[in-house]
Amino acid sequence: MPDTTNNPARKTWIPVPDHSDFPVQNIPFGVFLTRDDVITIGTRIGDTAIDLGAMHQLGYFEGIPLTDDIFLQDSLNDFISDGKKTWRLVRNRIGDVFDADNPKLRDNKEHRHIILFDLDEIEMQMPVFVGDYTDFYSSKEHATNVGTMFRGKENALMPNWLHIPVGYHGRSSSIVVSGTPIHRPQGQTLPAGSETPVFGPSKLVDFELEMAFITTDANNLGEPIPVDEAEDYIFGVVLLNDWSARDIQKWEYVPLGPFLAKNFASSISPWIVTMDALEPFRVETPKQEPTPLPYLQFNGKKSYDVKLEVDITPENGEATNVCKSNFKYMYWNMSQQLAHHTVNGCPVNSGDMMGSGTLSGTTQDSFGSMLELTWRGENPLKMKDGSERKFIQDGDTVTMKGYCQNENVRIGFGEVSNKLLPVFEPKKK
Amino acid sequence: MPDTTNNPARKTWIPVPDHSDFPVQNIPFGVFLTRDDVITIGTRIGDTAIDLGAMHQLGYFEGIPLTDDIFLQDSLNDFISDGKKTWRLVRNRIGDVFDADNPKLRDNKEHRHIILFDLDEIEMQMPVFVGDYTDFYSSKEHATNVGTMFRGKENALMPNWLHIPVGYHGRSSSIVVSGTPIHRPQGQTLPAGSETPVFGPSKLVDFELEMAFITTDANNLGEPIPVDEAEDYIFGVVLLNDWSARDIQKWEYVPLGPFLAKNFASSISPWIVTMDALEPFRVETPKQEPTPLPYLQFNGKKSYDVKLEVDITPENGEATNVCKSNFKYMYWNMSQQLAHHTVNGCPVNSGDMMGSGTLSGTTQDSFGSMLELTWRGENPLKMKDGSERKFIQDGDTVTMKGYCQNENVRIGFGEVSNKLLPVFEPKKK
Repeated sequence: MPDTTNNPARKTWIPVPDHSDFPVQNIPFGVFLTRDDVITIGTRIGDTAIDLGAMHQLGYFEGIPLTDDIFLQDSLNDFISDGKKTWRLVRNRIGDVFDADNPKLRDNKEHRHIILFDLDEIEMQMPVFVGDYTDFYSSKEHATNVGTMFRGKENALMPNWLHIPVGYHGRSSSIVVSGTPIHRPQGQTLPAGSETPVFGPSKLVDFELEMAFITTDANNLGEPIPVDEAEDYIFGVVLLNDWSARDIQKWEYVPLGPFLAKNFASSISPWIVTMDALEPFRVETPKQEPTPLPYLQFNGKKSYDVKLEVDITPENGEATNVCKSNFKYMYWNMSQQLAHHTVNGCPVNSGDMMGSGTLSGTTQDSFGSMLELTWRGENPLKMKDGSERKFIQDGDTVTMKGYCQNENVRIGFGEVSNKLLPVFEPKKK
Repeated sequence: MPDTTNNPARKTWIPVPDHSDFPVQNIPFGVFLTRDDVITIGTRIGDTAIDLGAMHQLGYFEGIPLTDDIFLQDSLNDFISDGKKTWRLVRNRIGDVFDADNPKLRDNKEHRHIILFDLDEIEMQMPVFVGDYTDFYSSKEHATNVGTMFRGKENALMPNWLHIPVGYHGRSSSIVVSGTPIHRPQGQTLPAGSETPVFGPSKLVDFELEMAFITTDANNLGEPIPVDEAEDYIFGVVLLNDWSARDIQKWEYVPLGPFLAKNFASSISPWIVTMDALEPFRVETPKQEPTPLPYLQFNGKKSYDVKLEVDITPENGEATNVCKSNFKYMYWNMSQQLAHHTVNGCPVNSGDMMGSGTLSGTTQDSFGSMLELTWRGENPLKMKDGSERKFIQDGDTVTMKGYCQNENVRIGFGEVSNKLLPVFEPKKK
């Protein structure tokens, strides 16, 4: 059964502003609190949020095998477990219901009042309960930049990097949705020239521009997922800011990898854009030389052209764009990442999240972190208000946006936008 | 309200074999399938499993604020969320009900038939749903051994090791309960002298002898847990085998840490032994020099004397003991681990699991992994059947046991015992 939602000719009876990330061809999935403080699963067209729980209760998904409460949940995990065929049936149906020529809901004022919300009436929540979070390190440009800074140009890429989609486990409990403020972390750092660490607020808080994919139940303990089946287990994609404390990271990360430098917060955009919506934007993966081992060899176009950008907005200030990059720069594609992750039999479940790693391009203005953009703080960035940034300051809001665009349609991700607060102050007892 | 269960003078009307790990002073918590295929939360005295769901329905927890279905669940997470006061009320009540002098259940044959099970009538399950799994690296002897092998004696301990309870994130989805067979993982390894990796079954599958603690909901995003409050958020402790593929690990782990070398499986013992049960076995933590930073400085005895051992049993063969170690060797105690983990505001939830890292002692026979016991395979171990082991072979069962013992009582953990199967063979389509 084909996906019918990305027909670029379709018009909808919902008003969609020009250049909206959410035309009727997108139909992403998210979780929100309604004006009545009810939690529900929903989608979005233009600037209208759509309550799928209410739609289901009112019979708009008749004929699709769904449990009664599948959308009346605080996460998408169960719906994602239903599998690709069900996702597609639901998206196709939503496309049909909101088609400009379909009067069923369009002309039912009572139902419209129950199902549709203005964006300012709802509050977006985490779309999934993330059981396990893995972060890859799959941008060659990012790995080369960081390697050059820490080990010099000659040894920039580790010997394994061109053979392995290098990744590591992150912390699920500190993944938050766009809008959640984040405290500057404290921790141990080693002052330059010292052999004894000190404790205090991180001085080098950074963002990392990433995308992340959300999986469905994929395999049992022991069973690998072949690279050419991997996409069947990917529900969709979000924007990810992998907040990082560079000074904590530098002191802690040898030999077991980053830990407290990362797990104080990771933030994601609230709408999961499905693989079907991204279908028109497939592109070739960058050439891989040397040829990967057979379990990583794939067929077809497995990368996606998603334009990305990062703004920094000082407190009560104006946004300054600091980076423009693209998801397509990623050296190892999502199928390779998932095949690698499971080649040893590691189980992947509904709601697991896998980050791309920082998505840097080849040009200075496409680097996906302050570490790279300012080259360890050596070349501060100028903000529109005249101030400078080496890293992120208290009160700054970091906003990442992403969208796909061709001659027919724009499929966007909205944004992940979070403010950095000062160090947490415990309440006096 | 004090704990009353560890009164060593208490006798119970349940038969308890000599040297049982589970006297009436232990009262651990687990999850099992009953003979009727019902899942329930339970405890164990001697060789009798006790259905706490049934006990609750029959009124034995009257007066304790518990929801009706708190024990009729497939994980302990909700019960653990109820907090320390509730855990203690429930354990105290169980101790009372099974006290030799209490006739209430003892003399009620009908209730006994509903509540009590022989061990061979039940099947133990994972006791908790692990949201996040962290593995520390807190045995100085283990870190020194591994460091000596990989970097030489002079650089054995990394500069940060004596300042930081080094840890990293593990994979929750591949944590399995004792008894679950585990497939030998496949992956990339770099043959000696080669610059190009090969793909195939790991040749160096190893165990790691660890203990792990299970937490309750501890903090919100941004809020650290002070070291002297940390124990309030620890529900209890299990045995952990952190299965490792040394050849995969060596090739993949720089710079982001172990990944596929570990996440094919980690196995735990099914009964969570509470901190109250371990109370009589507190000991001093090994002297820490240099003095840790203030957020890691603690008062009192925060380590525990738990005797540990590892057996290897070849297929259809006899068990050979290969290691005797102790939880008390751990350089950084659990309170320090939890304080460190949260000092940056990382949230800790009910059911999170934190491993100790491999628990090696100072003597050759106390090393907690084959890597150390055979010193990279240079000194194979002799099995009772005359065969030799450098690492774990297909068909071998690795069994870890642990118990505390003083003049009055033995509090044990039972075992974590898992068989290594050959590489997974996909079914022909």
